[in-house]
Amino acid sequence: MRQILCYSLVSSLLKSTMRSHTYIDSLGSARMMAQVLDGKSLAKDIKDELKLKIQEWVNRGHRAPSLKCIIVGDDPASHTYVKNKVEAAKYVGIDAETIKYEDTLTEAELINAIKELNADENVDGILVQLPVPETMDERKVCNTVAPKKDVDGFHIINVGQLCLDMPTIVPATALAVIEMLKRFKIETFGRNAVVVGRSKNVGMPIAMMLHSDKRHDSGLGMDATVTICHRYTPKEQLESFCRNADIIVTATGIPSLIKADMVKPGATVIDVGITRITDEQGKTKLVGDVDYDEVRKVAGALTPVPGGVGPMTVAMLMHNTFQAAQRLRDTTTN
Amino acid sequence: MRQILCYSLVSSLLKSTMRSHTYIDSLGSARMMAQVLDGKSLAKDIKDELKLKIQEWVNRGHRAPSLKCIIVGDDPASHTYVKNKVEAAKYVGIDAETIKYEDTLTEAELINAIKELNADENVDGILVQLPVPETMDERKVCNTVAPKKDVDGFHIINVGQLCLDMPTIVPATALAVIEMLKRFKIETFGRNAVVVGRSKNVGMPIAMMLHSDKRHDSGLGMDATVTICHRYTPKEQLESFCRNADIIVTATGIPSLIKADMVKPGATVIDVGITRITDEQGKTKLVGDVDYDEVRKVAGALTPVPGGVGPMTVAMLMHNTFQAAQRLRDTTTN
Repeated sequence: MRQILCYSLVSSLLKSTMRSHTYIDSLGSARMMAQVLDGKSLAKDIKDELKLKIQEWVNRGHRAPSLKCIIVGDDPASHTYVKNKVEAAKYVGIDAETIKYEDTLTEAELINAIKELNADENVDGILVQLPVPETMDERKVCNTVAPKKDVDGFHIINVGQLCLDMPTIVPATALAVIEMLKRFKIETFGRNAVVVGRSKNVGMPIAMMLHSDKRHDSGLGMDATVTICHRYTPKEQLESFCRNADIIVTATGIPSLIKADMVKPGATVIDVGITRITDEQGKTKLVGDVDYDEVRKVAGALTPVPGGVGPMTVAMLMHNTFQAAQRLRDTTTN
Repeated sequence: MRQILCYSLVSSLLKSTMRSHTYIDSLGSARMMAQVLDGKSLAKDIKDELKLKIQEWVNRGHRAPSLKCIIVGDDPASHTYVKNKVEAAKYVGIDAETIKYEDTLTEAELINAIKELNADENVDGILVQLPVPETMDERKVCNTVAPKKDVDGFHIINVGQLCLDMPTIVPATALAVIEMLKRFKIETFGRNAVVVGRSKNVGMPIAMMLHSDKRHDSGLGMDATVTICHRYTPKEQLESFCRNADIIVTATGIPSLIKADMVKPGATVIDVGITRITDEQGKTKLVGDVDYDEVRKVAGALTPVPGGVGPMTVAMLMHNTFQAAQRLRDTTTN
């Protein structure tokens, strides 16, 4: 069972979602700007593909895939994320429901609620929007979700399978990065990749797929030489590893960490960071880890923030949910 | 529960197990040779520590830890490995038994045998000597061993826990490398490490511990910047990454892959490779991945083959077995 999506639309996608422009440098020469890897547009195309597949699935007599999104407390960012996920689900034909709890909910109550959803045959996917309140053990909560319904891919068993290159459910953001590299035909085989940030939900799984053997069962291996940098990588070493990289994936939440002089001309830069900052005019805006305007003059391809990895994450979550529904059906009918 | 072993003997160990010598270079100057990280001697000390602890454990009224080593077929190397493990077990006071099967054994029969050992309260550790016959699915066999008795650390759940920096059973060879770095006080924090080889039992778990956050629950994180190189890393890139590394861990089985001009003066080189070759006199001998005699003139510290990581692997397997016995006891009495 390979997790490669349908590539039928790729050639048309490439035209619509890769944009490049020229600019005039300080000596008056026209130079090529990096191609912008438009995640929003690609995510739309992937959702359209999924919508068709889910329609076929339902036409074959299956019920629509079903996703339950649990949110505890009133963090506005979390509510926005869940709202986006539920909207995307509705768009592709997934029956999604948000289950809201006050932050007075106890860990035991949350665990019971998850267990009920685990046992419910009419539920295919369960996600618990993180962070959970500090009174709860996040790891314990993630491990309560049945691995087959764990569309976030955070359960120990799903992580173990990922790290052993076995078919599994991959954390959506990590899968989004790998899917963008594939869809935009960025060569990774034998290339140098740097992953900046070692979080267990993003940096670690990305590094795992980037370095792994493509011939293994998951089909997600990218065969790159991968360097994992993090908060304790000295600045000059981070700069040096990045300058030597064909692909930089950054996921730190540090605005402007990746500057133009750290990027090899023509390299691909995937920006997973997302931070809300206040600009000089006092307006708030979302920025990534990359000094976008300057890096665009050097890189070969670059994801914007917003509109890059973010919308792709939501699309891959929908992919995971449909995959969970299909596998659960395979299990119950076999 | 932290997996740090007792360090009481470290200072005396360091004297006895780190050796360095001088040599005369081509210009007639005396130069320092790398310290030889003597795994055999360190392994002996660790086994002596374990022997004491197990004696105390038994004196407190527990039965001796029990290890079952399953071997299928008649591969001579596999039989030698198992013999060494059983001998080490006896030395430290672990009650070890080898269970031998003909290679006509079916996968189903092996799985049943493992399940019986899983259910047996008098068994703490189970290992299946790899490789199993080609008629069997190695992954399925590894996942049949109960995670708490899986002293090889190959079960999906143990791998998942390792990759999430949770307390777990770590594959013995990977743990041997990390333990040598700790015992010989090789600084890893913020340093550059290269892991050559991406196997799931050796290279991958080593890279995982080397790059991880020391403050996490497992206590095994080493906070190094880690580059994972493999068969598809171009030769000149492998050379360049190695030359920039403070620590090189190589686990490829390719003799003389790591040459002196690839090693930064003063770097630590850990050689996990072990290959039997025939020398110019027609004699067979065991060699590692490292061009030992030449690299010794450049490196700061270096493990020999044989007598480096190999004996340490056996010692760490004993550590894993005693740990499994303790945890199983904790589980049944709580």
